[in-house]
Amino acid sequence: MINVKEKNIKELEVLCQEIREKILKVVSKNGGHLSSTLGATELIVAMHKVFDIEKDPFIFDVSHQSYAHKLLTMRWEKFDTLRQFGGICGYTKPSESEYDYFVAGHSSTSISLGVGAAKAIKLKGEQKARIPVVMIGDGSMTAGMVYEALNELGEIKFPLVIILNDNEMSIAKPIGAVSRMLSSAMASPFYQKFKKHTENFVDNFGDGAHYIAKRMEESLKLITPGMLFEEMGINYIGPVDGHNLSQLIEIMQTAKNLNQPVVIHAQTLKGKGYDIAEGKEEKWHGVGPFDLSNGHSSKKSSAKSATQIYTEALMHLAKNNEKIVGVTAAMPSGTGLSELIEAYPDRFWDVAIAEQHAVTSMAALAKEGFKPFCTIYSTFLQRAYDQVIHDTCLMDLPVVFALDRAGIVGEDGETHQGVFDISFLRAIPNMTLFAPRDEKSFHQALGFAAEYQHPCSLRYPRGSFIETNLPESAPFELAKSQLLRSDNSDILFIGYGNGVGRAYETAELLDFEVNILDLRFVKPLDEEMLLDMATKHKKWFVFSDSSKMGGVGSTILEFLSYAKILDVEVESFEYGDKFITHGNTKLVEESLGLLPQQLALRVKERV
Amino acid sequence: MINVKEKNIKELEVLCQEIREKILKVVSKNGGHLSSTLGATELIVAMHKVFDIEKDPFIFDVSHQSYAHKLLTMRWEKFDTLRQFGGICGYTKPSESEYDYFVAGHSSTSISLGVGAAKAIKLKGEQKARIPVVMIGDGSMTAGMVYEALNELGEIKFPLVIILNDNEMSIAKPIGAVSRMLSSAMASPFYQKFKKHTENFVDNFGDGAHYIAKRMEESLKLITPGMLFEEMGINYIGPVDGHNLSQLIEIMQTAKNLNQPVVIHAQTLKGKGYDIAEGKEEKWHGVGPFDLSNGHSSKKSSAKSATQIYTEALMHLAKNNEKIVGVTAAMPSGTGLSELIEAYPDRFWDVAIAEQHAVTSMAALAKEGFKPFCTIYSTFLQRAYDQVIHDTCLMDLPVVFALDRAGIVGEDGETHQGVFDISFLRAIPNMTLFAPRDEKSFHQALGFAAEYQHPCSLRYPRGSFIETNLPESAPFELAKSQLLRSDNSDILFIGYGNGVGRAYETAELLDFEVNILDLRFVKPLDEEMLLDMATKHKKWFVFSDSSKMGGVGSTILEFLSYAKILDVEVESFEYGDKFITHGNTKLVEESLGLLPQQLALRVKERV
Repeated sequence: MINVKEKNIKELEVLCQEIREKILKVVSKNGGHLSSTLGATELIVAMHKVFDIEKDPFIFDVSHQSYAHKLLTMRWEKFDTLRQFGGICGYTKPSESEYDYFVAGHSSTSISLGVGAAKAIKLKGEQKARIPVVMIGDGSMTAGMVYEALNELGEIKFPLVIILNDNEMSIAKPIGAVSRMLSSAMASPFYQKFKKHTENFVDNFGDGAHYIAKRMEESLKLITPGMLFEEMGINYIGPVDGHNLSQLIEIMQTAKNLNQPVVIHAQTLKGKGYDIAEGKEEKWHGVGPFDLSNGHSSKKSSAKSATQIYTEALMHLAKNNEKIVGVTAAMPSGTGLSELIEAYPDRFWDVAIAEQHAVTSMAALAKEGFKPFCTIYSTFLQRAYDQVIHDTCLMDLPVVFALDRAGIVGEDGETHQGVFDISFLRAIPNMTLFAPRDEKSFHQALGFAAEYQHPCSLRYPRGSFIETNLPESAPFELAKSQLLRSDNSDILFIGYGNGVGRAYETAELLDFEVNILDLRFVKPLDEEMLLDMATKHKKWFVFSDSSKMGGVGSTILEFLSYAKILDVEVESFEYGDKFITHGNTKLVEESLGLLPQQLALRVKERV
Repeated sequence: MINVKEKNIKELEVLCQEIREKILKVVSKNGGHLSSTLGATELIVAMHKVFDIEKDPFIFDVSHQSYAHKLLTMRWEKFDTLRQFGGICGYTKPSESEYDYFVAGHSSTSISLGVGAAKAIKLKGEQKARIPVVMIGDGSMTAGMVYEALNELGEIKFPLVIILNDNEMSIAKPIGAVSRMLSSAMASPFYQKFKKHTENFVDNFGDGAHYIAKRMEESLKLITPGMLFEEMGINYIGPVDGHNLSQLIEIMQTAKNLNQPVVIHAQTLKGKGYDIAEGKEEKWHGVGPFDLSNGHSSKKSSAKSATQIYTEALMHLAKNNEKIVGVTAAMPSGTGLSELIEAYPDRFWDVAIAEQHAVTSMAALAKEGFKPFCTIYSTFLQRAYDQVIHDTCLMDLPVVFALDRAGIVGEDGETHQGVFDISFLRAIPNMTLFAPRDEKSFHQALGFAAEYQHPCSLRYPRGSFIETNLPESAPFELAKSQLLRSDNSDILFIGYGNGVGRAYETAELLDFEVNILDLRFVKPLDEEMLLDMATKHKKWFVFSDSSKMGGVGSTILEFLSYAKILDVEVESFEYGDKFITHGNTKLVEESLGLLPQQLALRVKERV
């Protein structure tokens, strides 16, 4: 435990330098989030100086900016294992350290957590002894959840310190009115002009005008970036220099003593302390391993990612069909939508971290005859579940949900795994679910989606599809599977999406023949094909990168039950009922027994 | 079609009177939403006068205030069937009328829809010919989705008229900072004092001070209720009298011509035109049939509702365990939490329409050692799905999700059916799912929940449990079912929650014996009991008020497959893959073939 409390400013400045060096060393080796965590170093050191980590809830929003906090709390050495399997998680994680108050990988939860903690502190009568401190980035301010929390906080006014880490760029560029309000109102011509006039006025009229001038200043405050908070009943201090340690400590101390909700608006520089990354936008947000000396990526480019295929396919479709529109929620480059936004700025939008609004606004475009592609990570669609049900499927609107990062996502881990989408989407009436297995089928699947006149959802993995030499993909037709390998064996492998490649890899390791079916549609199922398969093959194995509960295997069991077929055995190689940890995807899969070698053994045991 | 455009103000005022009379007549007979729709009459008539229903998207938030709109658009006669099976829906519904632009039963979607429609209009080059008009109540302003939409709207600034129907009480009382900001800033002492000083200032200094006075007025505007919108880049007009027809028409015309996003802040009186309801709070929001002359409910009180049992049981638990806390999202009386909020205002909260914040703030209370009961309708938990996964289950926190209105909800219909919760909750690791079947078991289930140290969710129906003479309920134990009726028959009825009563009713109609199991836990299952049952009985029928896809039957199929039991036939009497319409619950169930008589026939066919 690094005792920040005992160090003086000079020593703390040295510590900040050491923290930055450590972060740069580890992230350049392991990959990870870089620019926001570098920018937040002084803020976190000041938090540890002023607040008491042994008692006060330290709440980090998204928490990829919390590396300095991890280093300060007994994880300096172990930090070398950042984001590795079995190593330090890239986000706060209470099971890793008692000093991590909460899990946070999805954004904008922190103020709600702070309000909850403040309520608990009040109930326990600990208000003199403890206070929650929240750190939230400006990018997280666009999600509606933040306002829901501020709305209650402004009413109950429990003590709570919110440190707004404003680096003016969230993940990509700042988007929307809130961002503008936060970061640019101070520089607005109106503000500047008005300020000057006030000063002139006071100069000219002397003492007599003091009262009115004071009143004007009060009103003036309202058009600073703090207006939003002040009007909600929350105190506001700022903007302050987020890299000036002594000022930060002083201000945090003041805020802590206020005994009321207060926002400290700190302006920081993304990438601070690493010249190559300083102030750079999206590029240095999350990175793979790179060469510290020149910033070049040290990983060779691997096979084409599913995201890249998505971009290429959608560019092609959008070029030929001007009804195609699309949206991302603050993940333009992650979802591959940035090229489309650039090429067609009137048809593709980044609406900031706002999944609910993203889905519902696209539903309205569908109602107006457009063909929206909502491009959202599987894990983030959880944020817009009701909007998929209530605003899209109830209206039976032809919105496409393109779910990137379906399955295990590797280093981001538990908070980001894309494993539940089949379970939560399949029960929704009017929804169609399908998945491509490789590059060609992805193009075909998107072609199908572009023409389909109902809500539909397709899923594809982070990184590239499993590379195997799969047979030529047939065009996508509603509820049509593709039989890829057929013989007289009793065994049928059913693959879905990336599971088809896994089924192939597994089959390659067996010394007997199996049949392989690319299911393609998990809703509606290819009933004709499955009935035929049921008469011919009695041992079915299901391969899909999804939760077993309510997943592909479960769907097939429902079908067999409905069809009154009792003599087919089904075993599903989907994910069991546990949250899945972070790390290299292959290592994670190995820990779950899902590598082809392991699956081949499990098949052999069954037959 | 009532041609509002051709009528003059006098005629329109008469029309408003006729509309109110019609609404009162029908709602007093059928039940329905009353006070907000009465209050919105002039707003809707003015909308129809100024905007063009044949071209402009009319978007109603929640849309229970849209009765006047329905009456104006060719549904005057059919309105007598309001909320009845096969009749007029209580919410806007495009499949009922081309004049209903969108489905809306959940709140706060309207501005997102308006933004989507505005984007479509721009893309189609129809900006001179069409403009979306949105009507939203002040209660809907607390949900985060609204801010996500305003954030983008303030940036893109497409033409869009938002009519804010401010009746200062949403469903219950106004909650939170936003509400205060909207409705009371105008009356604040600071505003009043400041205004007076400005006036004095101008009077005293004459012409020379005009410039500065003008500036002060500009800053003054910022502390009116419109501040929030203006700062977001959205024009604001108001507050205006929402019952002054000629003023409303004039202002809407102005707003329409602005060619920019604009909010019209209209103040209305809930229940306007019906003395007994005027200005009354929650009581007259949604009502059953009542006597128009005195406002008395004309329905005899029926059996104790599940909600009432919940209140009694939780009051008992809360009295004896001060760690118990709870939350509702703007449904204090609907969920039965109002008594608890009154008795323990420090431990039970209404956080307004803000399901996301409700869940995540309770997760923090659980982290601090409290035992939160999140009391939310099944359908509204869809709004907080990610918060259940990411903030509660990932942390394995002992939050109880008490899901009221599970199953068919009757007259509210499609948007409110509580049918998906098992499908979307079961796949989440660490989650436990169970359900009571009657009054006693409900007390026991809540007793279990209060002690349980992991996330759990229980569901119960709208209205009362199916009344049958069920055997005495045994205490709730984790993963323990209760065998209620046992004999040598090959048939096993498995009931879950209210499905147990349904199973009993069905069994009563058979001329042969069946076994009846109260499953109680759908996660984790009582595997021991099910294995035993599987050796003894081979035809299983599942009774549960839930979606078949991913529901209770599906769960049992997964278990049988896992246990390699191939000789048990399962048929599930859950809901098929269709959205379920509104109307009397019995009639709706009949249309789905789920009445005991119908189920008994289906059982006979199978055996």
